[in-house]
Amino acid sequence: MSDNIKPDIYKLNLPADLKKLSLKQCEDLCESIRKMLITTVSQNGGHLASNLGTVELTMALHRVFESPKDKIVWDVGHQAYTHKILTGRADKFHTLRQENGISGFCRPDESEHDAFISGHSSNSISAALGIATAMKLNGDDHHAIAVMGDGAFTGGLIYEGLNNAGKSDTNIIVILNYNEMSISKNVGGMAKYLSQMRTKESYKRTKGAVERVLDVTPLVGKPIKKAVRGSKNAFKSMVLHSTMFEELGFEYIGPIDGHNLEELEAGFTAAKALNKPVFIHVNTVKGKGYAPAEENPGEYHGVGSFEISTGNPDVVLADSFSSVMGKELCAMGRKNKKICAVTAAMKYGTGLQYFAKAFPDRFFDVGIAEEHAVTFCGGLATMGYVPVFAVYSTFLQRSYDQLIHDLAIGGIHAVLCVDRAGVVGSDGETHQGIFDISFLTAVPNMVIYSPSNYEELKLCLHTAVEKETGITAVRYPRGNDKSVYSKDKVNSLYTHYNNGSRTLIITYGRLFNNVYSAVEILRNHDISCDMLKLVKVFPIQQDVVDIISAYENVLFFEEAYDCGSVSEKYAALCGNVASFTIEGFVHHGDSDVLLDELGLSAEKIAQTTEDFLNNET
Amino acid sequence: MSDNIKPDIYKLNLPADLKKLSLKQCEDLCESIRKMLITTVSQNGGHLASNLGTVELTMALHRVFESPKDKIVWDVGHQAYTHKILTGRADKFHTLRQENGISGFCRPDESEHDAFISGHSSNSISAALGIATAMKLNGDDHHAIAVMGDGAFTGGLIYEGLNNAGKSDTNIIVILNYNEMSISKNVGGMAKYLSQMRTKESYKRTKGAVERVLDVTPLVGKPIKKAVRGSKNAFKSMVLHSTMFEELGFEYIGPIDGHNLEELEAGFTAAKALNKPVFIHVNTVKGKGYAPAEENPGEYHGVGSFEISTGNPDVVLADSFSSVMGKELCAMGRKNKKICAVTAAMKYGTGLQYFAKAFPDRFFDVGIAEEHAVTFCGGLATMGYVPVFAVYSTFLQRSYDQLIHDLAIGGIHAVLCVDRAGVVGSDGETHQGIFDISFLTAVPNMVIYSPSNYEELKLCLHTAVEKETGITAVRYPRGNDKSVYSKDKVNSLYTHYNNGSRTLIITYGRLFNNVYSAVEILRNHDISCDMLKLVKVFPIQQDVVDIISAYENVLFFEEAYDCGSVSEKYAALCGNVASFTIEGFVHHGDSDVLLDELGLSAEKIAQTTEDFLNNET
Repeated sequence: MSDNIKPDIYKLNLPADLKKLSLKQCEDLCESIRKMLITTVSQNGGHLASNLGTVELTMALHRVFESPKDKIVWDVGHQAYTHKILTGRADKFHTLRQENGISGFCRPDESEHDAFISGHSSNSISAALGIATAMKLNGDDHHAIAVMGDGAFTGGLIYEGLNNAGKSDTNIIVILNYNEMSISKNVGGMAKYLSQMRTKESYKRTKGAVERVLDVTPLVGKPIKKAVRGSKNAFKSMVLHSTMFEELGFEYIGPIDGHNLEELEAGFTAAKALNKPVFIHVNTVKGKGYAPAEENPGEYHGVGSFEISTGNPDVVLADSFSSVMGKELCAMGRKNKKICAVTAAMKYGTGLQYFAKAFPDRFFDVGIAEEHAVTFCGGLATMGYVPVFAVYSTFLQRSYDQLIHDLAIGGIHAVLCVDRAGVVGSDGETHQGIFDISFLTAVPNMVIYSPSNYEELKLCLHTAVEKETGITAVRYPRGNDKSVYSKDKVNSLYTHYNNGSRTLIITYGRLFNNVYSAVEILRNHDISCDMLKLVKVFPIQQDVVDIISAYENVLFFEEAYDCGSVSEKYAALCGNVASFTIEGFVHHGDSDVLLDELGLSAEKIAQTTEDFLNNET
Repeated sequence: MSDNIKPDIYKLNLPADLKKLSLKQCEDLCESIRKMLITTVSQNGGHLASNLGTVELTMALHRVFESPKDKIVWDVGHQAYTHKILTGRADKFHTLRQENGISGFCRPDESEHDAFISGHSSNSISAALGIATAMKLNGDDHHAIAVMGDGAFTGGLIYEGLNNAGKSDTNIIVILNYNEMSISKNVGGMAKYLSQMRTKESYKRTKGAVERVLDVTPLVGKPIKKAVRGSKNAFKSMVLHSTMFEELGFEYIGPIDGHNLEELEAGFTAAKALNKPVFIHVNTVKGKGYAPAEENPGEYHGVGSFEISTGNPDVVLADSFSSVMGKELCAMGRKNKKICAVTAAMKYGTGLQYFAKAFPDRFFDVGIAEEHAVTFCGGLATMGYVPVFAVYSTFLQRSYDQLIHDLAIGGIHAVLCVDRAGVVGSDGETHQGIFDISFLTAVPNMVIYSPSNYEELKLCLHTAVEKETGITAVRYPRGNDKSVYSKDKVNSLYTHYNNGSRTLIITYGRLFNNVYSAVEILRNHDISCDMLKLVKVFPIQQDVVDIISAYENVLFFEEAYDCGSVSEKYAALCGNVASFTIEGFVHHGDSDVLLDELGLSAEKIAQTTEDFLNNET
């Protein structure tokens, strides 16, 4: 293809054809990809700033390496959209994050080019090391490549991976996409260290060091050296220097300008030739090429739909369970000076920005370090403080051992605000908050509240902070309070809607909306059902057992994983409880659609109840 | 007290009196303590080598700092025996690890000098940072001090702690007790880095650097400088130098000779004066002062009782579930070249030494890094290998998120050999393996086998590796096969002992021994009970549900935590199942005694069954 012809991304055989294109054509392609990213994310929502930053990096990867024989493992996957476009998914890219569309994260069952699952941070080096080790055992000299943002460096798993990979006998390549921030500003000593490395003049010596390595690299070293010598500007900032990563056993290459294709390709080519663990440091600009995102990369990390010309979001967000929690905690913090708030890199997502602004001394963003967050809370609590750790349900999975070992054994009082509990929608399998009930109830002396509306959320938060004395979780869903029922019975235990029926439907949390509507549907079918809305869902309440025992038929609908669910516990105690839960992983899509698929919409609950009663009689 | 009088450890008011003693008297005291350590551990078993290494370090800590106002957080607690002796527990030290005796780990409810729970590795910096932060908020200028061995540096949580602590506005002190090994030889890049630091001449500059810091330290700087100037040999190897820890924001002091009290005290005094995060590097010799332990620190890490004069263990260990698993896996690895074995620093404890020796290329010790271990297994498995991760039940708690995210979502085939499942005995709360059933059943598509004897263990291991296709756990207890029943019905599903009774007792694992004996006791009381021994305990088997349904009374005894237990699941499905499980944390003591306390001895099972049947009729 001539250098003058602009390549059409929809007509290329990707990724193979990339190697046939000229540098100029690839740069044109990068421009097209940026437009696709902005257009699609403006319509579907998703991760924008991080993906705009990795367009050239991804292009260079696929030109130098040979996926899927070389395996690229993306950490989190917030930055893998270009990878999706360049590996045969350009034509489906407009379906990003939609029901039956392509996932916002990497999924091996979506493409052979997605070498490993992504979604939770900091797992990429460990997975890539497993792959690289297998390649070594197979006598296969392809490469396993882990690509991560600097945010991943706040998680301990990345360090466990580095510690093992650096000294391994493999040719693993670790690529740090350094853009000075992850979801929000990075925290801690490592962030500062990386930041210094980004700019330090002393690291920008000459290309001599790389060349010295290539000199002693058999076979491929010489030709590459010749090639890179001819390249313009390449290696201007590339050196091999004694960094923390070299201390851990890696060859270090960097920093590389992450928006300069030529430089990227030269760096990757050198890494490929080294045939040992290599750490490549690439500097990128988050939001590159779209002014609103470059200026506010934090806001454009994960976004809903927005208007491209202005960058304005389509809908101004109203209050959410997160913001209501955050504002209430801030109000409580004003009176109670012992309250501390902790987040693992989710200050805005969890609504803690209000508390952070008002009480910076008592606010702690620990980075993507959920284990540390819990143990740190333990330390604060032993000194008489009341730590409140606000965290997404799916990420709290990482702290299971710390909840048991560092909090529960010691009988420590700490509050968990479990955000995004239940089905979360378009983020898919890796992010659904459906396991917290199972693993939290498997921590001795845990207390769990699951408010259905804002008023109950506030009440539960007060109860958790002011009355409870052990670990207390308050769990609530993503999004807004959409209550369809009267809130005149707000309390923190349970509400029994008793109309004298022989059938009882139990639920908790936002699902009560659907049960309430289902009971109206059933009433129109001349079926009368009582309702029980739990707020304190664990431990088992004897009152609730007594109420259940008085009914002939009891159906318990629950937005939680089946094994270990609350309904399972009541069913084990009471012979008359039928439990309707979530039985496996939940793919991505609209939350209401997903709840319907799971049998948890008002219509499905009504239908299930009717069928159940017909079978019983 | 005159320098000539040898202090009597039982008569001192500890730790306060330590500050009144001369250096010579303290050295005498260290000698007495070493004798106590050797005597007690030789009788009760416990951790010897690590504790012999920290005698002087602990003495210096309590002379320089003021516990409990200064808070010392011991990582793991394998090295805190001297701390126990020096904080008012000398007279009880002979009860170490015994029922109603003092714990082998740190417990705040045992002493106000135990600032935080210990048992699981790598949590100390996070806990100490919480404490230091609270001190800061309180305007309290005491210190939080985290003490850890280098083994803790293979765990990601320590890195999350370092990352947050280094940049914190606290005066946290982190003390690395460097002895070149943890449970077994350390692995990875960090171990090599620390090893280089231990000996590097360049770190041993002069005492000038420390003095420069003291010069600019207000108030206390000058007097300390004067004091340390006068001390002989102090600071000969103490400097402030640019290390990885300084990059993370700490002041670095070290390396210090960990068996030189004077040098230790000078280092700690300097750290105390700095009033910012300080990292102190102390070199110690594991097993110091007891020749057999110095020569074989690995063997003397955790030991049973032994003869002091020879160092010989009292009993030569027979086969155990661990060694039977290890030998069988080794035999399997010979035929199946795809089997890989992974351990998190427990090569000997899990019986993997046989496999390691035979197939070093396919054996991986990743350090105390259970999260990495699971994700690494995921990488191996995507390439067609069959990873077998052998791990203690209690430590697998750390991998809950990785099991879901990195294995289960992708439908990956990996085998978990869950060792020390159930009650483990003298290690206490932090080490009981009673939660694996709860959290493993809360991982979609998990399969769990729980063999009762060696033959079943082998069969289950073959089934897990050769027939299962998803994540498969094989769980087994600490210790030996003590089967009292005929093993003519070995299989991997279940065995139904049907004698036509209307009462069925169900159990699994080693507890079948007790149920078998209980049924004999009941027979002597003219009560006939059938038995069901499960081997595949999860998922639910329809056959088992059918068998249960045919009985009038069903009692399910289970050596597992109540919430999330297998019996709870069968009880939820079948109306006639009464479940008898473990309802909370289990303290330390002899395993058989503990099982009796938990109602799970043969006698208690028989009694419970008799009472149950009397109540039913």
